[in-house]
Amino acid sequence: MILTVTLNTALDLTYGVPELVPHASHRVSEMSERPGGKGLNVARVLSALGHATVVTGFAGGSTGAVLRELLAGLPATDAPGPGAPGPEAPGTTPVPTTPASIAPAPITDALVTVAGNTRRTIAVVDRATGDTTQLNEPGPLVTADEWTALLGRYEELLAGADAVALCGSLPPGIHVGAYAELVRAARAAGVPVLLDTSGEPLRRGIAARPDLIKPNADELAQLTGSREPLRATRDARRRGAHGVVASLGPDGMLAVTPDGIWQAAPPARVLGNPTGAGDSAVAGLLSGLVEGLSWPDRLRRAVALSTATVLSPTAGDFDRAAYEELLPRVGVEEHTPAAR
Amino acid sequence: MILTVTLNTALDLTYGVPELVPHASHRVSEMSERPGGKGLNVARVLSALGHATVVTGFAGGSTGAVLRELLAGLPATDAPGPGAPGPEAPGTTPVPTTPASIAPAPITDALVTVAGNTRRTIAVVDRATGDTTQLNEPGPLVTADEWTALLGRYEELLAGADAVALCGSLPPGIHVGAYAELVRAARAAGVPVLLDTSGEPLRRGIAARPDLIKPNADELAQLTGSREPLRATRDARRRGAHGVVASLGPDGMLAVTPDGIWQAAPPARVLGNPTGAGDSAVAGLLSGLVEGLSWPDRLRRAVALSTATVLSPTAGDFDRAAYEELLPRVGVEEHTPAAR
Repeated sequence: MILTVTLNTALDLTYGVPELVPHASHRVSEMSERPGGKGLNVARVLSALGHATVVTGFAGGSTGAVLRELLAGLPATDAPGPGAPGPEAPGTTPVPTTPASIAPAPITDALVTVAGNTRRTIAVVDRATGDTTQLNEPGPLVTADEWTALLGRYEELLAGADAVALCGSLPPGIHVGAYAELVRAARAAGVPVLLDTSGEPLRRGIAARPDLIKPNADELAQLTGSREPLRATRDARRRGAHGVVASLGPDGMLAVTPDGIWQAAPPARVLGNPTGAGDSAVAGLLSGLVEGLSWPDRLRRAVALSTATVLSPTAGDFDRAAYEELLPRVGVEEHTPAAR
Repeated sequence: MILTVTLNTALDLTYGVPELVPHASHRVSEMSERPGGKGLNVARVLSALGHATVVTGFAGGSTGAVLRELLAGLPATDAPGPGAPGPEAPGTTPVPTTPASIAPAPITDALVTVAGNTRRTIAVVDRATGDTTQLNEPGPLVTADEWTALLGRYEELLAGADAVALCGSLPPGIHVGAYAELVRAARAAGVPVLLDTSGEPLRRGIAARPDLIKPNADELAQLTGSREPLRATRDARRRGAHGVVASLGPDGMLAVTPDGIWQAAPPARVLGNPTGAGDSAVAGLLSGLVEGLSWPDRLRRAVALSTATVLSPTAGDFDRAAYEELLPRVGVEEHTPAAR
């Protein structure tokens, strides 16, 4: 199984309004509610790819209870059940793919209960333009005892994990070196660890030598001071990450790894909502790692998944048909040794 | 006791942000959560004025549970307890007042549980300017059986009520003539009824002949087509309301009643957040009616309370000291018979 850690889970609300006008009153015409926080989004995509996933992190209060209730309903019941056909027959396609008929794998709730209230995030979507205004609550204050409980739960879960993703922001009360601590525990347990966060928690986490980080261009610039992708990505690797996959938005991804350097790009630029595209990329990279795919195939999957997420009408979901169609069309180019 | 009915209760969230910028992401720096919907706001003010209040209407789902938990904590525990001095000694002041030491009266939860989720409302406050952007969820779909349960509960409660306020919007599923039905039941039970709503529910409700309505200038214009206060208020009365108190914002209130016509105004214009000022006015009018105050005294109280609500740092609360100070200074002028 794959483990995802979300220290600052969220109840994600999406509100549709005709147009958001500051200082006016708005009647919300459509709304949806779902369990969120980056690690939970990653788990949803991993489940759709057929990977059993366990989620841990913190949840509490009335919003935490709603989050866990919604999480228990995943994977969605209208998805094919366990009786549906399993993974693809071998050798039928040139690149690894996940057929539309694959059964979603279970997502297991191993969240640690805290006294505080899980935060809400609110995405206000202008119906006319699709533009989104985001409001994020800060999250509950986590106590030292609750952090100790999480560490214990995490170490137990590592024993059964094929890989782990550490995702998102830190809630109040959690020390800035928390991810570094979790990276070290994963490495001590011999479990490959991907870190996807930003700012000082990323800087500290990298120094603990995670297997992979997946910064976007802004996170990379904040970390390294450089906006030149190859330079910044190499710099991030020198800071301690074994591999760095930089997500460059519509330009695709740049991977700097011990095995080589690759650039992967979707066949064409797409328009849509980028919310969750990074989380889909994490799911693509991590599932590819667990399945033993080559770097080019991992990158094809990550780029196809994140592009299919931008194309999905629901923020954070990926469009399965678009994913299938994109997968063989993602271009991957290896940097020649001279360019290294 | 005074009964308030809130068919579309709400969990009111207030988010502080430095500035709301459409299509940007915002970290909420401060947040608060309280039970809302107009009738609950009216009950909070009535309680502070020393009037025992029962609230009914609908609540359901996880947000309804939080709302009821917060409601159970009212009146706030830092307010003077039941051992504090009661209402004022008679004859000591020229106008009726509510001393700062008055004990808040209990608010009793008689809400009817529904299967749907109580709505949230979100007030996003720009910390720099105090300007508020409002997002209102539509509310749960109420079934015919749930409406029947509310009618039964309402008729039981009317038996013990000195007055009733019917407040706010209708949730989905409730027929547009719902308030008319509730007005007729109150009149049949001999309980004075104040209706505070807008649009078609107000138009239908007025035809059932409530004792009082309290429209603001916009609601009055929508109802009558006129923006001339005296003409519009008289027209509203002709449509069926026994008394009409039009709230004219900073200009105060205009009352057209069977006993005469009065205009009441605060001593000076004030700056602040008008959220809840109308609900405070309803509490002022209704408590004055139950206490048998004259129309001028009811209007003084209503204007002082709503002005003190605008002045309060917390939206919807009233500033007790400002209220005490304003009460004797509200100007009330009677229209001469010629002007009628």
